[in-house]
Amino acid sequence: MDQEPKSSRQGRRSGGRAEKRAARSAAPTATAPYIVRGVPTADVLSLEGIEIIEANAETILAEIGIDFTGDDEILALWRDAGADVSGTRVRLPRGMARKLIATAPAEFTQHARNPARSVRIGGNNMVIGPVYGPPFVHDMEGGRRYATLQDFENFVKLAYLSPHIHHSGGTVCEPVDVPVPKRHLDMNYAHMRWSDKAFMGSVTHPDRAADTIAMADILFGDGYLNDNTVIMSLINVNSPMTFDATMLGALKTYVAANQAVIVTPFIMSGAMAPVSVAGTLAQAMAEGMAGAALTQLIRPGAPVVFGLFAAALSMQTGAPTFGMPEPIQVMLAASQMVRRLGLPFRSGGSLTASKIADAQAAYESAHSLWPAVMGGVNFILHGAGWLEGGLVSSYEKFIMDEDQCGMMAVLAKGVDLSEEAQAMDAIREIGPGKHFLGSAHTQRNFETAFFRSTVADNNSFEQWSADGASDAMIRASGLWKERLAAYEAPIMDPAIDEALKAFIAKRREELPDSEY
Amino acid sequence: MDQEPKSSRQGRRSGGRAEKRAARSAAPTATAPYIVRGVPTADVLSLEGIEIIEANAETILAEIGIDFTGDDEILALWRDAGADVSGTRVRLPRGMARKLIATAPAEFTQHARNPARSVRIGGNNMVIGPVYGPPFVHDMEGGRRYATLQDFENFVKLAYLSPHIHHSGGTVCEPVDVPVPKRHLDMNYAHMRWSDKAFMGSVTHPDRAADTIAMADILFGDGYLNDNTVIMSLINVNSPMTFDATMLGALKTYVAANQAVIVTPFIMSGAMAPVSVAGTLAQAMAEGMAGAALTQLIRPGAPVVFGLFAAALSMQTGAPTFGMPEPIQVMLAASQMVRRLGLPFRSGGSLTASKIADAQAAYESAHSLWPAVMGGVNFILHGAGWLEGGLVSSYEKFIMDEDQCGMMAVLAKGVDLSEEAQAMDAIREIGPGKHFLGSAHTQRNFETAFFRSTVADNNSFEQWSADGASDAMIRASGLWKERLAAYEAPIMDPAIDEALKAFIAKRREELPDSEY
Repeated sequence: MDQEPKSSRQGRRSGGRAEKRAARSAAPTATAPYIVRGVPTADVLSLEGIEIIEANAETILAEIGIDFTGDDEILALWRDAGADVSGTRVRLPRGMARKLIATAPAEFTQHARNPARSVRIGGNNMVIGPVYGPPFVHDMEGGRRYATLQDFENFVKLAYLSPHIHHSGGTVCEPVDVPVPKRHLDMNYAHMRWSDKAFMGSVTHPDRAADTIAMADILFGDGYLNDNTVIMSLINVNSPMTFDATMLGALKTYVAANQAVIVTPFIMSGAMAPVSVAGTLAQAMAEGMAGAALTQLIRPGAPVVFGLFAAALSMQTGAPTFGMPEPIQVMLAASQMVRRLGLPFRSGGSLTASKIADAQAAYESAHSLWPAVMGGVNFILHGAGWLEGGLVSSYEKFIMDEDQCGMMAVLAKGVDLSEEAQAMDAIREIGPGKHFLGSAHTQRNFETAFFRSTVADNNSFEQWSADGASDAMIRASGLWKERLAAYEAPIMDPAIDEALKAFIAKRREELPDSEY
Repeated sequence: MDQEPKSSRQGRRSGGRAEKRAARSAAPTATAPYIVRGVPTADVLSLEGIEIIEANAETILAEIGIDFTGDDEILALWRDAGADVSGTRVRLPRGMARKLIATAPAEFTQHARNPARSVRIGGNNMVIGPVYGPPFVHDMEGGRRYATLQDFENFVKLAYLSPHIHHSGGTVCEPVDVPVPKRHLDMNYAHMRWSDKAFMGSVTHPDRAADTIAMADILFGDGYLNDNTVIMSLINVNSPMTFDATMLGALKTYVAANQAVIVTPFIMSGAMAPVSVAGTLAQAMAEGMAGAALTQLIRPGAPVVFGLFAAALSMQTGAPTFGMPEPIQVMLAASQMVRRLGLPFRSGGSLTASKIADAQAAYESAHSLWPAVMGGVNFILHGAGWLEGGLVSSYEKFIMDEDQCGMMAVLAKGVDLSEEAQAMDAIREIGPGKHFLGSAHTQRNFETAFFRSTVADNNSFEQWSADGASDAMIRASGLWKERLAAYEAPIMDPAIDEALKAFIAKRREELPDSEY
């Protein structure tokens, strides 16, 4: 289970193709392509607690069951595998899901078109991606408005430019100025052309998943996809305990092509799950285990990530809340349980219910990012830019959040215990009552010693006042504009670019302008 | 070491006195008097890592030594105990500090005048206190200005009213309108009269420590202090590796009276310690171990807390920074090491370099509070109200931070695994595809299911806009004023109040108006 899947090992061996892809993209890698944890995970459950929740999840699977709607093929798969299928309800005998999941890789590589940006999903690795899903965008001057393709491209570029965001993500915002049936073509192209980091595919229709695979096939060429995972896509569970036809269709398409899916219970506790941490956990485990098991029925060995989106409903107002302690407990506990299940885990991010990038936004985001990083989440989605309960992608908050992701990366790497870091020579040199500024050790190390925030103002009150008494939002507003102004596209082979454009033009002709 | 010290066990038996004190103070206890952790600590060091740092700390103590300046009595104590004393430099043979520390209690009770508010310091317990030390205050309308006694009383009242701040703290701000030599009298009185939570004593002169003890003796009466710890005071190390006469004098005074001290290396890495985590850690451990060992030389069994204030200097600008990953590593690692040493640990809080309660302030504060709570800090100072690197006590930030402390308390308590929390009845009742809002389990539990933030706005964009599009600072500004307007003083026996006032009047007469 700890082995890299055969597919990506084969991919690595084919140095010729990798070199060709590297030549197409010469953007400098400013930082490590992902985080390798050096600190233990922060846990909240005892072994006894884990076993209670595991038993409850098995009870849900065996006695209550999961609905798989609108897909007879999948019901037949379950029936053939020995599940109890009644209508759309599928009940799995105790232990069946866990046994099926055993063929899924504990870690896998998602290849980027720039091999230096390929990411390891699972194990001690942590990959952070940007916000996913909002129909709106917000910036300090323009305020809140519907997102456009221009915004989509801007967020792809900001994620590309960020040294702390490892992944290009998927729906960084919904380009609502493009018709729904054609939108995925522009979104895929933006990820492929304006970034060289790994990306997520369309899941809103099986045909759009197929288009995503076809475009990736053009991008990577030479049948590369046959042996390698290059797309990772978000398959949400329609909680409680339901998989719908759209998601199942997309899941089947990707899994059959050996591309990764993130099966994600999407839960607001109190509405889509019980109003308690332990109840939410058992249900989420049952849902995720059923989805992950299904991927292995479709294609044993296919990469699958166990996802969890956990929030809580305010039981007083009915509003979704973020950064609250109960969903944090759900995330930390699920991280422990999924690790024991042997699957990579996706959760977390910089979540908030705030309408602007104020102190509420920052506190809540930190409360989501900390448990994700310290709890050992392998793929952190919504790492930067999320605002207003996921309705808004915020330019300023993207800049603030990615700065935080950089800090958390330093923290997660762990304490440097080298002789140089122990600095006993400095302590001997300086001794009591003096300062370390001029020590030889300080001179050798001060340039790289401490994380440098791009957003924080650490100046004196007087200097800060003289500089205009800015708040973090104002400073972030300047930064995203500076970065986009300095953006340069990664190099791409013109023939590939032409082929992608030709594919898009053909599909634009074939597809209708309104939803089908 | 895990036993409560004899002194406080005796205190507990004396029900008569406790009842009398309870009768003096009838304020309702809105919440638990402190947090008892139910989750494991988040660790960053392996055992091997701990041993490396421990060995380096012993090397510092044995080979480099610590300066104890301006106090011959203390140098004599060290000499008699077998240390190598040369001038003011004290070198401790390897193992000596650890051996001395073994007589200090791993946990102790700091008694409050309201016994329901007494706090356990050490072990699995976490006590959160307010900001300590700023000469300035800030509120949204009044801006930044020198603090006054009125501000001091306001912050004492806000901490008293907070369900999430367990301790009244000490110098919640510096009342600069009161002469320095008399200031401690008013500060002590404010803690004793306007709150009934435990408090911290004056440390700026041994005589002021003695005054604090005398006032506490009046407050608790009946020789209660002989057997019980009712004051806990902050003794900062003048890092690197120096204890000065003022702090040593205050330490001796409190320890001799069996009152607790928090020996706290005060370190900006890069200036007062090496520009590395491992180097800072070894030095901080050596400093704290020397101070804690000294308390046991003065009075074996006296309660002592190992403190750590860790920040990092920006090596580009020389400005102090907060919420950065390297000092967080220092805090988490020190928490592990002090736990192994068998002492209670103080650190953390809601630290920031920001000048206002904006997103920077919130991110940085969350980055300080999370590791404090998840790392198992026993006494979290600066839990609420800290701004601008500790130069400012902020009214708005106090309200925001204390809300965060409430969330962290829920998180630290751990996951409820009771049958009711497992909610299997709800999952059976609702099943796939429906919602849980109307389930019997939700009806039974929704009132108390989730933490309710006082500051967060979780409303829709439209509702939030209609309500005036406030940010968190504006909402906090309304809240602190509401709370102070509704404040009612805890009941106090008029005879005690008179006696305290008489003591203060006498000392005001005796003391000069300018520093002595």
